Amino acid sequence: ATLRTELRCKCVQTYPEFIPIKQIANVELIPEGPHCPTVDVIANLKSGSLVCLNPEAKWVQIIINKILNGASSRR
Amino acid sequence: ATLRTELRCKCVQTYPEFIPIKQIANVELIPEGPHCPTVDVIANLKSGSLVCLNPEAKWVQIIINKILNGASSRR
Repeated sequence: ATLRTELRCKCVQTYPEFIPIKQIANVELIPEGPHCPTVDVIANLKSGSLVCLNPEAKWVQIIINKILNGASSRR
Repeated sequence: ATLRTELRCKCVQTYPEFIPIKQIANVELIPEGPHCPTVDVIANLKSGSLVCLNPEAKWVQIIINKILNGASSRR
């Protein structure tokens, strides 16, 4: 709930390279709003790093939909 | 980074009703993995509530893609 009180974008720049889905522990999406004119897409990597992803990058959109569809495996 | 150490699903049940995108402060996606056989989709509402969403619900997929595309407004 702390994010509600943030007054600006969390991401100042996005990671330029592809990140394999296997390295991603979770992804946080923060919609645009009064605090920020663009969506923030923040990936928490299994390595422990937090990286901002470019929401306009095709691979980012594909990875998010793969996560949603449980595409990493069994279904 | 705390999520990496969780050993089970975060969501035990999902919210059955539609939630307007305007009420969503952020959405967290946790891919399926050894800790959990399904993706966890957790919405942090502006009201302060945390709710689990059903990743298989069409409206959930639509809302996530709307957030990604910045569809709430200007772009």
